Amino acid sequence: MQIIESITEMQKALEPYCAAGKSIALVPTMGYLHAGHMSLVKRARAENDVVVLSIFVNPTQFSPAEDFEGYPRDLAHDAGLAKRARADFIFAPEVDEMYPNGYGTFVEVDGPETQGMCAAGRPSHFRGVATVVEKLLDIVGPDRIYFGQKDAQQLAVVRKMVKDLNIPVEIVGCPIVREPDGLAMSSRNVYLRPDERQAATILYVALKRGAALVEHGEKSSARIIEAVKRVISGEPLADLEYVEIREVAGFTAPKTISGEIMIAVAARFGRARLIDNVIVNVE
Amino acid sequence: MQIIESITEMQKALEPYCAAGKSIALVPTMGYLHAGHMSLVKRARAENDVVVLSIFVNPTQFSPAEDFEGYPRDLAHDAGLAKRARADFIFAPEVDEMYPNGYGTFVEVDGPETQGMCAAGRPSHFRGVATVVEKLLDIVGPDRIYFGQKDAQQLAVVRKMVKDLNIPVEIVGCPIVREPDGLAMSSRNVYLRPDERQAATILYVALKRGAALVEHGEKSSARIIEAVKRVISGEPLADLEYVEIREVAGFTAPKTISGEIMIAVAARFGRARLIDNVIVNVE
Repeated sequence: MQIIESITEMQKALEPYCAAGKSIALVPTMGYLHAGHMSLVKRARAENDVVVLSIFVNPTQFSPAEDFEGYPRDLAHDAGLAKRARADFIFAPEVDEMYPNGYGTFVEVDGPETQGMCAAGRPSHFRGVATVVEKLLDIVGPDRIYFGQKDAQQLAVVRKMVKDLNIPVEIVGCPIVREPDGLAMSSRNVYLRPDERQAATILYVALKRGAALVEHGEKSSARIIEAVKRVISGEPLADLEYVEIREVAGFTAPKTISGEIMIAVAARFGRARLIDNVIVNVE
Repeated sequence: MQIIESITEMQKALEPYCAAGKSIALVPTMGYLHAGHMSLVKRARAENDVVVLSIFVNPTQFSPAEDFEGYPRDLAHDAGLAKRARADFIFAPEVDEMYPNGYGTFVEVDGPETQGMCAAGRPSHFRGVATVVEKLLDIVGPDRIYFGQKDAQQLAVVRKMVKDLNIPVEIVGCPIVREPDGLAMSSRNVYLRPDERQAATILYVALKRGAALVEHGEKSSARIIEAVKRVISGEPLADLEYVEIREVAGFTAPKTISGEIMIAVAARFGRARLIDNVIVNVE
């Protein structure tokens, strides 16, 4: 496994595989890898000839008030995990390499995908996400790109960008990986104090309550959202940001649910802002 | 030569060439081809295995007050010219194919390239240009893309976008092709009445006056711009929009010129909004 920091070296390293018609996978991450990331690498490994794992804490998707500087980083540990999962390359550029002096091009996605949920409090977040994914796609030129379903809105934004811009890549969304007690794996879980870590399990409990209501025939978004909020409000360490319901196709917020829908939540526990979601099929 | 209207068919048609490692050229145009366009096709033909000429009058680069509906179109005539120049494919999608219902992704380039000149009166023009070029690059996946130097600001915007987003394509800028009396070739010249057509030659006369001043040692941008404006003001049918001087590298507007600079002009003659420029090397 090779660790590459330069864009041109990354492109050069992939040229022979590209010329030989080998399939290339890209797993874009911000590092501090956990079992959720590793599930993406394993799936990418099974489905492609070459696996590139990118590790880049992308400043353009953090707002000034957010945790860019303090975001956890541990490249040595990440490299060990990536090697064990048989990734071929880690692409880990510095910020200056990705955004040199005079940088000025951004991809803006407009639609339900960038309205509400995580976009509400973070106006330029998804512009940063779309831009860095577009750059990584241009640098690596993968056949397939792997994302976790936990960042559901990010996945929806990338799907829309790829469709709109006709980018020739297959997007593979992978299930959320959870701790044994249900907490969704996240690099930000490291911020949690022990009591907050315990409290954070309320998110999945609340989402399962919402899913159970759907399975019992509840069709009103407002009532499902209310029930999920009620569960979370019972946890004093949880500072709820939103509970929303979206249709998986089109990402609109339905009043009356049908088809495949997602219940999504964001809340703070101390320093950690956590997100989670479940997908439910309305029979 | 094949004419293709569908994005997926265009991608499919190019797959075998791509797999065989053939070099692909893209010449993006809005059609109504003239000798300027044909010089791009000829150069692309000489330098590549496969030549794709795209013809698409791109609505997102026209402002509501502009000539999108009336922009001249003649696909049959264009196809004849393209065939004679031995293009392999014409890619001519409909508007709905490029911007289907729910479309919402745009590429924004921020910097001196999108300030002043043609950006001043047309705020979203270059957003439209960058977006459609990004889409065409994703659809065709060319090794080289050919642009005329006449649309100098467009070329600068595309260069910046390609550099910023790390798009793996070589940009080839080609010299302006002129009528025998010096008027730069443009599809919009068809709008000119005979007296306006005659008057429009003033643009190149004025630019040559500016270039002569530079060659005689004038270093003040303001004085060169003033001299060019004075020449154009002698032509009552010319409605001047701007005269600007920009450095070719970086596209900034220098007070005192040095290195490779561009003198650029835009003016209306009746219905026709015409642009032109000359590049001068300051010794």
